[in-house]
Amino acid sequence: MQEINLDEKLSKFSEQWTPKIIAELNDQYIKLAKLEGEFVWHDHAKEDELFVVLKGTLEMEFRDKTVRFGPGEILVVPKGVEHLPRTIGGEVHLMLIEPKSTKHTGEVVDERTVEKLEWI
Amino acid sequence: MQEINLDEKLSKFSEQWTPKIIAELNDQYIKLAKLEGEFVWHDHAKEDELFVVLKGTLEMEFRDKTVRFGPGEILVVPKGVEHLPRTIGGEVHLMLIEPKSTKHTGEVVDERTVEKLEWI
Repeated sequence: MQEINLDEKLSKFSEQWTPKIIAELNDQYIKLAKLEGEFVWHDHAKEDELFVVLKGTLEMEFRDKTVRFGPGEILVVPKGVEHLPRTIGGEVHLMLIEPKSTKHTGEVVDERTVEKLEWI
Repeated sequence: MQEINLDEKLSKFSEQWTPKIIAELNDQYIKLAKLEGEFVWHDHAKEDELFVVLKGTLEMEFRDKTVRFGPGEILVVPKGVEHLPRTIGGEVHLMLIEPKSTKHTGEVVDERTVEKLEWI
């Protein structure tokens, strides 16, 4: 049991679109990610996903709406809902919470799909 | 699917030690709480608990150590581990994530135990 400093963990990597695991609880991982640009449309059949923006502005496109949010705001993407994250105006730092079983690109395999995420 | 602004939600209540539910994911609730002073020793037999400090300084006393943390830091308290939260120097605003089954005072019943938490 030790506090985790998010900036200190963020300083340990620079790769974008490659979430790193920093903690676990209730069969989920807490991850940090750096993003810039646009990801791929995907969903997670069985997993809800929490997005907490730490820096920058993230836009989440859904099939029927778009949600834009930044630090001090959170977004839950429910299981089965297709979504496409993109950054607005520069790199975004993000904290994610999702079940351990979650693949970050969902069922879609993209060149950015990482099979085994790293702990930092 | 809508972003949730944490400050806007925090402005909706002033009671201390009474977490409010703002979202759910994966059979857990995301809650906000305002704390000041010291709580009671308790644990949660089956639930891990995530503490994200939004404002102020929180000290978590365990039986064998004490962890102090603030904004930009997180702490996971694993299931079965006794803990006693206390604030240092004024009110603390907190985001909590824990299974829906979690009682905020664990198996201990205190005058602050709330049986049914409110959504805001």
